[in-house]
Amino acid sequence: ALADGTGDRPCVFEVFARRLPPGRRYGVVAGTARLVEALESFRFDEAELELAAGFLAPRTVEWLRDFRFSGDIDGYREGDFYFPGSPILSVSGTFAECVLLETLTLSIFNHDSAIASAAARMVSVADGRALIEMGSRRTHEEAAVAAARAAYLAGFDSTSNLQAAQRYGIPAAGTAAHAFTLLHTTTAGRDEASAFRSQVESLGVGTTLLVDTYDITEGVNTAIAVAGPELGGVRIDSGDLGVLARQVRAQLDGLGATRTKIVMSGDLDEYGIAGLRAEPVDAYGVGTSLVTGSGAPTAGMVFKLVEVDGIAVEKRSAAKESRGGAKRAVRYARRTGTLVEEVVYPARAEQVPPGEGSQVHELMIPLVRGGEAVGDLPTLEESREYLRQGMVRLPWEGLTLSAGDPALPTR
Amino acid sequence: ALADGTGDRPCVFEVFARRLPPGRRYGVVAGTARLVEALESFRFDEAELELAAGFLAPRTVEWLRDFRFSGDIDGYREGDFYFPGSPILSVSGTFAECVLLETLTLSIFNHDSAIASAAARMVSVADGRALIEMGSRRTHEEAAVAAARAAYLAGFDSTSNLQAAQRYGIPAAGTAAHAFTLLHTTTAGRDEASAFRSQVESLGVGTTLLVDTYDITEGVNTAIAVAGPELGGVRIDSGDLGVLARQVRAQLDGLGATRTKIVMSGDLDEYGIAGLRAEPVDAYGVGTSLVTGSGAPTAGMVFKLVEVDGIAVEKRSAAKESRGGAKRAVRYARRTGTLVEEVVYPARAEQVPPGEGSQVHELMIPLVRGGEAVGDLPTLEESREYLRQGMVRLPWEGLTLSAGDPALPTR
Repeated sequence: ALADGTGDRPCVFEVFARRLPPGRRYGVVAGTARLVEALESFRFDEAELELAAGFLAPRTVEWLRDFRFSGDIDGYREGDFYFPGSPILSVSGTFAECVLLETLTLSIFNHDSAIASAAARMVSVADGRALIEMGSRRTHEEAAVAAARAAYLAGFDSTSNLQAAQRYGIPAAGTAAHAFTLLHTTTAGRDEASAFRSQVESLGVGTTLLVDTYDITEGVNTAIAVAGPELGGVRIDSGDLGVLARQVRAQLDGLGATRTKIVMSGDLDEYGIAGLRAEPVDAYGVGTSLVTGSGAPTAGMVFKLVEVDGIAVEKRSAAKESRGGAKRAVRYARRTGTLVEEVVYPARAEQVPPGEGSQVHELMIPLVRGGEAVGDLPTLEESREYLRQGMVRLPWEGLTLSAGDPALPTR
Repeated sequence: ALADGTGDRPCVFEVFARRLPPGRRYGVVAGTARLVEALESFRFDEAELELAAGFLAPRTVEWLRDFRFSGDIDGYREGDFYFPGSPILSVSGTFAECVLLETLTLSIFNHDSAIASAAARMVSVADGRALIEMGSRRTHEEAAVAAARAAYLAGFDSTSNLQAAQRYGIPAAGTAAHAFTLLHTTTAGRDEASAFRSQVESLGVGTTLLVDTYDITEGVNTAIAVAGPELGGVRIDSGDLGVLARQVRAQLDGLGATRTKIVMSGDLDEYGIAGLRAEPVDAYGVGTSLVTGSGAPTAGMVFKLVEVDGIAVEKRSAAKESRGGAKRAVRYARRTGTLVEEVVYPARAEQVPPGEGSQVHELMIPLVRGGEAVGDLPTLEESREYLRQGMVRLPWEGLTLSAGDPALPTR
C-alpha cells in the first residue's frame, strides 16, 4: 500500500461484532482505556525494525521507524452495551496507520469485552452479593491482569490479582489456601486448628478461614473454637454448595457466629451463582469461568475497512457481509429510562433517524484526536458506574440467563 | 506461615490436571521454558513492596524484598503428553518460596498447554498440510504471543504474530487482508485487479492473493490474469470451504496454474480441518479456535502441596481428592515404540514399578536446581520434534477426534 500510494488514502475502519456469542443477550464494551494507553507506546524499536527488514522494503522499514498513529478514534463508552453491528469503535486516518492498529485493537477488545460480558451476567445474578475475582491461575499471566480489570469494570468487588490492584487500583481480596492448612500437618497428623490459629493471630478474627480441607463440619467447629463467634467468614470451595451453605449457616448460627459470613467458590459460573440465589451465601469467589468468558472466551469483534476517501466499501464474501460507510449510533429510551432500540446510521447523515422512545442518547464519544488521547476520558470507576446504571435500563428479559435474542433490537 | 515458622518447612508441590477437557484423549505439556525464563525475573520491586506493605506484616515485606526462588523443579519435558494425574511439575523448596510460584506457574501452564493441546489435534488431522497460526486478534495481546509459541511447539508451521517471530524465532507468514483489496476502490468502483497487481509487484508472483473479497470465481480469474500461472497461492476465507476448494482447484488447473496453492481459513477448527481432508487444500490458516483452545481455553491444571517435611499430605474435600506424596512417573512402551501405559509412583520408591511393555521411559527431567535453570534444557525446536515423534507412538485410537478415554491408561 505504501509502494502504490494507497497507503496514504484517508480511511475509516470500524470495530463491531457480527453476532453475540450463542444465547447471549448483550455484550459489554471493555478495553477502551487499555487501547488508548497502549497507543502511546505503539512504536517499533530497533530490534523489531531489524526483523521487519528481513521481509519488508527499506522504504516500509523507514516508515515504521517514524510510525506514530496520528488519526482519530471515536467509540462507545467503556462499560456500555453492544449488540450485533454496533459500531463500537471508529478509527480514521491514513490506511497505513489505521491498518497497523488492527491486531492490537482487536486483541484488547476481544479479550476484555469477553470477560466483562461474562462478568456482567454474574454480577447481575449475584444480586448485590459480593463477587471476588480469583481466576488469575486459569489464564495467561498478563491476560489475568486485564481480566481482573474487566471483571471489576463489570461490577465485581475485588480481585486476588495484586498486579491488577497495583496497576488499576482495584480492591484486592483473598482467603487462605488449602496448602496453608495442609502445611500444618506434623508427624502427629493433620492440624487444622494450628493453621486457623496462626491465620487469626496474623490477620485478626475478621479473616476468612477455609474450612473444607478435611471435613467441613469439623472445620467449622474448629474455626469458631479458634476464632470465636466474631470470625469474619468461612470459605467453602467444594461439594454441593447449596446444601453446604444451609448446613454451615445453621451450624454457625448454632455456635453463636450469626454474623460470620459464608464465601463460596469452586467452579462457579453465572448458572452456579443463580442456583445459590436462595441460599445463605454472602460472597462468591469466581475463577475459571470468569477468565475464560464463561463459554465465550473471545468477543468475536472484527476491524473492518468501511470507507476509503469518502467512498463506502464493503466485502461481498458469502455470509460475511458488512455494511460499508462510517457510522454513528444512538439509543432510544422510554421516559422511564428503559432502553428501547439502538439505531446505527451513516455518520454523514444530517439528522439522527427517528426511533421509538422519547429519549435519545448518542453512543459514540471522541477517544483519540490526532493520535493523542482526548482529555477527561472516563476513569475505570466512572465506566463501572456507567455500566451499573445501564444494567437497570435494559429491558428485564435481557437480564435473564436463558438464551434468546439480543436485549435490544438494532436497526 | 512466616509468622508461625511453617513458612520455612521443606515442601513439595505438584502440578497436575485432575482430568482432561471433555472428550480429549491427551494433553500436551507446554509452558516449561516460559516458566523457567519467568523465574529469573520473578522478584518484587519497590512499588510492589509498597502495595504489599498496605496489608502485610513488615517482616513479610522484608522477606519479599529479598525473595528469589532457591528450590528445585523437575517436570515432564515440554512437548510431552500428559494424562489425568500425571505429575507434570514437581516444585520443592520451603513452603514460602514454593507457594509464591503457584499463580505464575499455573497461568503459564494452563494457558500454553491448553493451546498446545488443541493445536496438536489440528496438526494431527492436517496430516502434513501446512498450518499457519493467525489467531492473535482473538486473544489478549500477550497471550497471543505465547499462543503462537504453543502452536509452533505443537507442529504449526508458522505464525502471523511478528512478536512471536522475534521472541522465539518462529517462522512468520501471512497473506493479504480484505482491507487491502477494498482499499483499491475508487469513484469508478471496486478494483481487485489493482490490489492484486500492487501486491505482486511488491512481493513477487510467489505471493498468496486473497480472492474472496467480492466474487471468488472472478477473484481467481483476476489473480491469474495479473500474476500469471506461476502465482504462489490463493486464499479463501469464507463460504463452504470444501466445495470452494474443489471449484477453485479445477479453475486454477484450467488456467494452467497447476502449482498455485490453495490456502483455506475462516473459523476453522480441528473438525473443519478434518472435513477438508479429502479436498485439494494446501494450507490452513487457523485463528479463533486455536487461541481459545478449541473449546478448552484452560488446561485445568492445579498446583497442590503434596509433601511437608517428608510427610505426605492431601486434601479430603468431596470430589477434589488428590494423592499425597512426591511422585515420579514412567511410561511403558512396546518394542515397536507404541506407548502402553503411564505409571505414577512414590518418588521415594526404590524401584520403578513393573508395567506392561518392554521399554520403560522416565518422564521427569531436572529443570531448576537451587533456583537456577539447569543447563541444556530442550530448545523450542527440540520440544517440537519431541512431540512430533511422540504423536507417532500414541495408540492410534488416541489420535481420533471423537470423544473417548485418555489415549493411555495411567496407573
